[in-house]
Amino acid sequence: MAQVPHFDRVTIIGVGLLGASLSLALRDKGLSGRITGYGRKPENLQRAKEAGIIDEYRIDAAASVEDADLVVLCTPVGMFTEAVSTIQHALKKGALVTDVGSVKGRMVAEIESLMPEGVRFIGSHPIAGGDKSGIDEARKDLFIGARCIITPTAQSDGDALDIISSIWRLIDCRVEMMDPFLHDDVFALVSHLPHLIAYALVNTVDSIDPDRIDYSGGGFRDSTRIAMSSPELWRDISRFNRENLLNVLDVFRDNLERISRCVEDQDWEWLEKEFSRAQKLRLRMNK
Amino acid sequence: MAQVPHFDRVTIIGVGLLGASLSLALRDKGLSGRITGYGRKPENLQRAKEAGIIDEYRIDAAASVEDADLVVLCTPVGMFTEAVSTIQHALKKGALVTDVGSVKGRMVAEIESLMPEGVRFIGSHPIAGGDKSGIDEARKDLFIGARCIITPTAQSDGDALDIISSIWRLIDCRVEMMDPFLHDDVFALVSHLPHLIAYALVNTVDSIDPDRIDYSGGGFRDSTRIAMSSPELWRDISRFNRENLLNVLDVFRDNLERISRCVEDQDWEWLEKEFSRAQKLRLRMNK
Repeated sequence: MAQVPHFDRVTIIGVGLLGASLSLALRDKGLSGRITGYGRKPENLQRAKEAGIIDEYRIDAAASVEDADLVVLCTPVGMFTEAVSTIQHALKKGALVTDVGSVKGRMVAEIESLMPEGVRFIGSHPIAGGDKSGIDEARKDLFIGARCIITPTAQSDGDALDIISSIWRLIDCRVEMMDPFLHDDVFALVSHLPHLIAYALVNTVDSIDPDRIDYSGGGFRDSTRIAMSSPELWRDISRFNRENLLNVLDVFRDNLERISRCVEDQDWEWLEKEFSRAQKLRLRMNK
Repeated sequence: MAQVPHFDRVTIIGVGLLGASLSLALRDKGLSGRITGYGRKPENLQRAKEAGIIDEYRIDAAASVEDADLVVLCTPVGMFTEAVSTIQHALKKGALVTDVGSVKGRMVAEIESLMPEGVRFIGSHPIAGGDKSGIDEARKDLFIGARCIITPTAQSDGDALDIISSIWRLIDCRVEMMDPFLHDDVFALVSHLPHLIAYALVNTVDSIDPDRIDYSGGGFRDSTRIAMSSPELWRDISRFNRENLLNVLDVFRDNLERISRCVEDQDWEWLEKEFSRAQKLRLRMNK
């Protein structure tokens, strides 16, 4: 059993919902000393400092990581490569780097390749936050009970993997290892596709008559909640998981066509079978 | 202002979630005397009686309505015509008939045409219940704050319309009048389409690998909650609102294609615009 890790200096790159919540959780569990925030908006960083989420902040990314023992990338995934390129030469030997990004795959290999000698990167993806964003929604218990996928590669350092895993475990995530490419394949299906569909469904109302949204009930509200998610974030996720997303879109299209065709052909018996197939699988999940 | 209505004898045709909740609400508000339930399953009716939801039950539909001052059709919509055909000759002169069905349009005209002399029908659609079903989920406050669409026609009796409207208002629904055909057009978009999409989305997981559902988070859970809804009920709704549903499916397909094409063509700027369009409209609703 590994010793409980402690990081004298932690740097959060991108102080939004996940970065701020992680900061609160690390401090709450006694895993961190001083926490430094880096971000694009000084006023956001100032507010985070005043709210006691971070201890200090830098508006120079490289300067923000100089003393850091642990660096966590919490910007939208589209900015990871740029952020890592900016900080790589400032990273301290022995530092650990991880992230909270929703895409892995090639991104993990790319970040790994940008790490200087003696700095180790392990990718992680805590499934938390949902459609919320921003530090006002930050909570130290955001990760409690959430699944966190850790995506080691053949290059991963075993000790670094143990330490990163134990951080997530200590803030009460259910940790699971997964190949970074398999990760993107799985999440294209269960997370990225539903977002695209929710956006398309709301746009359908917009195309027909936006005012009709006022007649929607709990079903529409639930099924489109994720359409309130950040367009910028989901543009980036779509971009970095493009091929998997195109594949699952094809399978979705086929499944929607099976249902449409039943309605078109008035095959009500088969339509009920399609609905029952979905109901049965969906009942396997909790509400 | 109309006098508060009171019905000495109420019959609920179909004692499921909506029928049972309505029964509890009518009694709670002092609007009803004795409440009789009719249904296909005697054991369900017996349980509803034991739970104090109904006062008595009949397994003969016609017998169940003989003394009724108010009859409410609460079966799945696919059984409305059969139910009305069975009870029509037993309905008492002066009785009022309404329903809780999710489709209106031609269905309203059909039920109207089956009403005997002196019996008045007014269609209603309380937007409540969601993915739940069955008497175990019944609550007297199910309708509080819910929208209830009343669908009068040129044939509707003004007094009957006032009385039916006031019942829903007295159990705390927000009542709104709408043409029955417009109703079906609107609800194809904001309710029926989302159900078909949710079923298709869960089936997409089933087609690829059902076990991957275990990796889904809150987004998938919310966006597919309605896929737990009754396949039989939604088969019927699809059937009775077929043409509107085919129309909105076309518009959804177009909107999904706009998004797919951005991903395919790597037009990330336009993709973000599509997402923003949806986010903006969705933010108009409450969470």
